[in-house]
Amino acid sequence: MIDLLSRQAVEAGLVQRWPQRKQDLVSQLVERQHRAAIAQRLSSSHPADIAFVLESLDKGPRDLAFSLVPQERRGAVLLETSEAVRRALLLDMEPEEIATLIAPLSPADVADLVSSLPEEARKDVLAQLDRAEQAEVRSVLSFPRGTVGSAIDRDFVAVPEEAAIADVQFLLRRRKSLPSHTTQLFVVDRAYKLRGLLALERVVLAEPDALVREQMTESPVVFYTDDSMREAATAFEKYDLVSAPVINLHDQVVGRVTVDAVVDAISERAQREGLRLVGLSQEDEDLSAPVARAARRRWPWISLNLCTAFLGSRVIGAFEPVIVQLVALAALMPIVASLGGNAGQQSVALVIQSMTLGQAGPAQLRRLLRRELAIGAWNGALWGTVLGLVTFLVYGHAGLSLVIAAALLVNLVLASFVGVAAPTLLRWLERDPIMGSSIILTASTDFMGYLAFLGLAAWMLL
Amino acid sequence: MIDLLSRQAVEAGLVQRWPQRKQDLVSQLVERQHRAAIAQRLSSSHPADIAFVLESLDKGPRDLAFSLVPQERRGAVLLETSEAVRRALLLDMEPEEIATLIAPLSPADVADLVSSLPEEARKDVLAQLDRAEQAEVRSVLSFPRGTVGSAIDRDFVAVPEEAAIADVQFLLRRRKSLPSHTTQLFVVDRAYKLRGLLALERVVLAEPDALVREQMTESPVVFYTDDSMREAATAFEKYDLVSAPVINLHDQVVGRVTVDAVVDAISERAQREGLRLVGLSQEDEDLSAPVARAARRRWPWISLNLCTAFLGSRVIGAFEPVIVQLVALAALMPIVASLGGNAGQQSVALVIQSMTLGQAGPAQLRRLLRRELAIGAWNGALWGTVLGLVTFLVYGHAGLSLVIAAALLVNLVLASFVGVAAPTLLRWLERDPIMGSSIILTASTDFMGYLAFLGLAAWMLL
Repeated sequence: MIDLLSRQAVEAGLVQRWPQRKQDLVSQLVERQHRAAIAQRLSSSHPADIAFVLESLDKGPRDLAFSLVPQERRGAVLLETSEAVRRALLLDMEPEEIATLIAPLSPADVADLVSSLPEEARKDVLAQLDRAEQAEVRSVLSFPRGTVGSAIDRDFVAVPEEAAIADVQFLLRRRKSLPSHTTQLFVVDRAYKLRGLLALERVVLAEPDALVREQMTESPVVFYTDDSMREAATAFEKYDLVSAPVINLHDQVVGRVTVDAVVDAISERAQREGLRLVGLSQEDEDLSAPVARAARRRWPWISLNLCTAFLGSRVIGAFEPVIVQLVALAALMPIVASLGGNAGQQSVALVIQSMTLGQAGPAQLRRLLRRELAIGAWNGALWGTVLGLVTFLVYGHAGLSLVIAAALLVNLVLASFVGVAAPTLLRWLERDPIMGSSIILTASTDFMGYLAFLGLAAWMLL
Repeated sequence: MIDLLSRQAVEAGLVQRWPQRKQDLVSQLVERQHRAAIAQRLSSSHPADIAFVLESLDKGPRDLAFSLVPQERRGAVLLETSEAVRRALLLDMEPEEIATLIAPLSPADVADLVSSLPEEARKDVLAQLDRAEQAEVRSVLSFPRGTVGSAIDRDFVAVPEEAAIADVQFLLRRRKSLPSHTTQLFVVDRAYKLRGLLALERVVLAEPDALVREQMTESPVVFYTDDSMREAATAFEKYDLVSAPVINLHDQVVGRVTVDAVVDAISERAQREGLRLVGLSQEDEDLSAPVARAARRRWPWISLNLCTAFLGSRVIGAFEPVIVQLVALAALMPIVASLGGNAGQQSVALVIQSMTLGQAGPAQLRRLLRRELAIGAWNGALWGTVLGLVTFLVYGHAGLSLVIAAALLVNLVLASFVGVAAPTLLRWLERDPIMGSSIILTASTDFMGYLAFLGLAAWMLL
């Protein structure tokens, strides 16, 4: 239904839908090397759509498709690709080529692009720009990634507080257009300090002789250049902002953050979190990188997991004489370890969630810990009993059933503790709680699962 | 530095910062039951800030704090809380109370709130509204959650295409204000079909005698009521939209989606994904629900994991005679299983990422599968060798080293396959790939890890 309608609508030239079909079409054309047809498709597409198509292609076809994008649109396209694809494309270019490509872009966008380059290449590219541009780009680059300063848009309209609405209308009409996402003008005093915001709506609706001062909103939400984009995202979400002024330490307006930068930040963060959970980073997103390099990028994660698995193995090794006497222990011990790990992951997820929402102060974490410990004890007692009964049914060994029930209880309580403690500790150490927590957790629950189960067995059964 | 400045700024009444300090303060006041002081703080706060404070409180203090929120602001506050907290607060109220509370809200917001109520309670609340309101709310409720229709804002400004800019200015001035996030007006023909968008900016900048038709943007991005919010989010992100028209099957404008709804959808989705990965859902976010109930909500996940762990245990059980003869097998077998599970999680994460980005068509999934299999084989061969060498160092048993190396290779290749196949299959079955994949994966890698290692050992070593 929608499909049919959307095709009709596209044909009627009325509406524009996102381009699953276009992507498939271009992919086919690229495979058949129909250069003219590709170039024609690409020239009529939105840069974001071209980027979407590039993302889906292998390195060879991708380079071909990119070379067919009109020169003056390449910069805009690169801004829309993922970090990994952008880097792959940029690294194949000469500094002069990159300099031509970034010429039509704003300093903030140039900074965004060149930040994907290695230090050396970045210098070469910047050297191609004129002095003033270089200075502007360097000033944006001086803010660390993930800060408001690195995403700042220096293009905004400020109006004096003592003006009348008619003056503002006159001022605006002399411009041909406004910076994108201009929904409000910044009201400043003579020292360029921010006094408030004037919604574009007021410029249209208010009486021409009304004063800006009467029509403006006071006490707006503002940001400093070194605020994090994460904080900005929280504030935009909370207060439903479209753009907000960025001020310096003297309360002077230096630029603005707009909702599109914030949406990008939120969604990029969400995407990276899924990968960081399993030890992957940005670069691993480039599915067209050579297999050997991709395999190598996973070595730290594999080797870390190998170490912790080996640690668990040594615990079991210490109990080999016990296992020889009661071999059922070997079959049952992974259950205790695995359930502990899985239950602990739930605690970790809740702590990370609280951290993301800004609801993880010391008092809140203490409360969460008490709660998770109670849940761990409760479920440990219950599922320990279930596991004990099943064990009795399978092995008919009352002592063994008792041991496994007790071991599961111990391990679930420990899992709750580590599940809350690991991310908290990592954050306190200023490490990534998302990436490290699951390794610490499974190492602990494996170690403790084997130790509790085999230790109790050795003590009670032999 | 920022802290100091922000305090000065707040005192100067110039800027507003998000309220970590306010939260701590209110929490303390609630603990000391200073009702008057709390009420005063809450009456001057933004609804989103009040919601933020409520989220951090336990059930008792939270109910106290909520009762101190002025009656007319309670609806706005509830709209900003998480689903779990909202439900907990609503379930304690009488239908009449809820009806008073939602009276000042728009039909879309009312629908949003009552959708948190059980069927029965929802009917009682709706019965308190007048006929016209009931019909409007029901029409919003008729769209499934997660569709554009369920997030539609029916408040928008449409202008005829044959009008002049001066007419539009005149039309707008008769209104006191515009709907929130109005950055563009919808241009329609006589049949109310969408013809294009007129940016508010054009109303300010264009010559008064210019025609709307000349100033409008044609072919805007539009949505249908049954498009998913996920698609809307992708499009908003791609094309940097602030709002977009929603049209019906006759191309007539029926409302709009705004960026604030989209930001909420993106960030809610991201938050839920972290929880869904470990089998938790919305309701588990309410950290003040009774422990017994919270523990019970985790039973399905625990029991599912218990079943798969038991399955793995039966594989080991079948090889008990082998383990008795070579007890080192018991210590080593969890390494093979665990490394397989961890490597497979990386494949799962990459597939889920591709699905989220809309880059998971059949051709792309085939490519991803080939790639993951190659990486699995490569890393399996390499780390199998490493593990084999370490095993030889510890046990001095060449056959055992060979067996564990081969078993790891087999298990990593299988992990790559299942890591890609499990989410693909689940999506094809229209199940949640995020929640189910990790269970299927670890069940497979445990099963196959034990089987390959112990089976090879039985065959080669005994």
